[in-house]
Amino acid sequence: MRITTPTLLLDKQKTIRNIRRMADKAKQNGVRLRPHFKTHQSAQVGEWFREFGVQAITVSSVRMARYFANHGWKDIMVAFPVNVLEMDAINELAARVNLHLVAVNLDTVTALAQQLRHPVQLSLKIDTGYRRTGILATNYAELDSVVQKIREQDKLQFTGFVVHDGHTYKQNDVYAIQTIYNTSVYQLHLLRERYKSKFPNLQLSIGDTPSCSIIDSLRGVDEIRPGNFVFYDLTQQRIGSCSFDDIAVCMACPVVAKHPERGEIILYGGSVHFSKDVILQEDASSIYGRIVELTPQGWSGPVEGIEVVSLSQEHGVVKASPEQFKKYSVGDLMGVLPVHSCLTANLMQGYLTTEGEQLEHLTGLPYRELVS
Amino acid sequence: MRITTPTLLLDKQKTIRNIRRMADKAKQNGVRLRPHFKTHQSAQVGEWFREFGVQAITVSSVRMARYFANHGWKDIMVAFPVNVLEMDAINELAARVNLHLVAVNLDTVTALAQQLRHPVQLSLKIDTGYRRTGILATNYAELDSVVQKIREQDKLQFTGFVVHDGHTYKQNDVYAIQTIYNTSVYQLHLLRERYKSKFPNLQLSIGDTPSCSIIDSLRGVDEIRPGNFVFYDLTQQRIGSCSFDDIAVCMACPVVAKHPERGEIILYGGSVHFSKDVILQEDASSIYGRIVELTPQGWSGPVEGIEVVSLSQEHGVVKASPEQFKKYSVGDLMGVLPVHSCLTANLMQGYLTTEGEQLEHLTGLPYRELVS
Repeated sequence: MRITTPTLLLDKQKTIRNIRRMADKAKQNGVRLRPHFKTHQSAQVGEWFREFGVQAITVSSVRMARYFANHGWKDIMVAFPVNVLEMDAINELAARVNLHLVAVNLDTVTALAQQLRHPVQLSLKIDTGYRRTGILATNYAELDSVVQKIREQDKLQFTGFVVHDGHTYKQNDVYAIQTIYNTSVYQLHLLRERYKSKFPNLQLSIGDTPSCSIIDSLRGVDEIRPGNFVFYDLTQQRIGSCSFDDIAVCMACPVVAKHPERGEIILYGGSVHFSKDVILQEDASSIYGRIVELTPQGWSGPVEGIEVVSLSQEHGVVKASPEQFKKYSVGDLMGVLPVHSCLTANLMQGYLTTEGEQLEHLTGLPYRELVS
Repeated sequence: MRITTPTLLLDKQKTIRNIRRMADKAKQNGVRLRPHFKTHQSAQVGEWFREFGVQAITVSSVRMARYFANHGWKDIMVAFPVNVLEMDAINELAARVNLHLVAVNLDTVTALAQQLRHPVQLSLKIDTGYRRTGILATNYAELDSVVQKIREQDKLQFTGFVVHDGHTYKQNDVYAIQTIYNTSVYQLHLLRERYKSKFPNLQLSIGDTPSCSIIDSLRGVDEIRPGNFVFYDLTQQRIGSCSFDDIAVCMACPVVAKHPERGEIILYGGSVHFSKDVILQEDASSIYGRIVELTPQGWSGPVEGIEVVSLSQEHGVVKASPEQFKKYSVGDLMGVLPVHSCLTANLMQGYLTTEGEQLEHLTGLPYRELVS
């Protein structure tokens, strides 16, 4: 199959190796793996998780939940604060799958109590340090009132506490990540103790790929919800979550121009393909992708002396050493490891495996309803 | 029609006003308006240009050219360096529309000469200062050899020179933008002189929204190709290309959480909706959107004391003064002016007009072929 435009390649062996490693780690630690499917958003990639015993999944929107429900998934957590405007879609889903929702405040729980027509599992999102959203782990007044409200409602089954420690993304020190993890687990245990007399089976769930990848002993929680690990990317490599060789997706971009006077190569591949996430390097320069050599079986490790240094809407600018510069001609394809695989996959709307199979992505499906 | 998820609102009156203003300016200056459709990528929005006499358009990919060709456009420039890997699709298009291509080097012209089966217009992209791509305006050796190569080919009709002065995006001083424009026009005139004995009708075409919006007298060129002006955005407002009131698209995002202890409101609306373009403010803070009040007819001007300060995949974090904070409740919709309307529209895959009409966007159409 001939590639003529920017294309997101997927190495199925690496992907499955990433899934296996995380599934094995979950099993060794006695925790449930509830992978976050927002990274791949693909029914076919989702199927690859089943052979590792995965039955419960995480998604980040009601639309994504509906998509995976339509592909046979029966136990789905929407790990985003409930959007009360989508109650019709939530009720439709709750009627046919084991739906887990996440609340971050009393208003939402009240709206759910009034409008839900089918039972759902409800977890509380706890903020143990990231400070994006969630109820602060020390805000006992709010926690008590929310828990009390849940208790009064027969359609709300209080399941436990979920955390997303997004601040691990700012680290590249295994001890810092371990400390963040321990701090979260400590706070979650206190919460479980506080409510265990009324709710003896509360589950503790954590979610970020850095913690789940880097920490060997994930004891203290019941469930992990990493997502990015299925593909990894340059951001995760920099954090220390993976090696370059674990990165399972790679862009193939046509070379359209060369500028020898400044050692720059222009790719067909810009911010509408990669997104604009960036890695700030130690020398204060920014990179938008690392270059690899495409091979018949996939791609090599990253090459030194050549990288994507800027992106506009459709253009990527690659800076190359003289040695690297001369390797490429107009009309060649260049391989680029993405900075953030979730956003790149979201824009690319589909995958081509290194074996030549096309895989779908939710965003590539027919024109969605703007409103419901 | 009820909005329940992040939705890109489009004010048709403002859009048409933006189109009219640019069409009037083109007419007053005696230049052809060949608008760039990469900003809206919508067949329906494209139709609005016809009543202003627009017959020739610009696009940034062969796929986009095919889409607008399928919607009746007959004169289409692909303002991106020819990707020689797409020759089959180029030939298919060249058979049915007046196709203009843009070359930046001899290799591409040679490949076109060998593989084109139908005549096309060919312009040379000139680099007059932006330094992204194009042939340097002073590189006469390369220019001469490329022009000679074109001259030898009967399927290549040498049309003229195109420039995209993307460095105007870094300015917010009308004199700087005027100087960039004058510098480009000066260099283009020299090139036209150089080749006029062999090619007496060479056209000069420039393309950036800041120049086309800010400069009153666009004399010296034959054609302008602005795109972003159809919607404008916060980036253009900051440059000085438009007022806030000219911004014709606005995101409507559900409020899902409030954090009074830090004056932050969490929106359902993240980098998969807005993209990650950012405005760095004078105080070194970053903003990802300005907040407006949604009204039955559209939206207000931007409100002071409240703005989007960070984005993750699905979450937007809004920082609000106490006065603004208390205006919003969970379940409300918040209006957000985007930093970069092209990328936001590309992600949102469709529009809802303030009159309730749904408009399509190319990226929202059924799953595209990954390979051709």
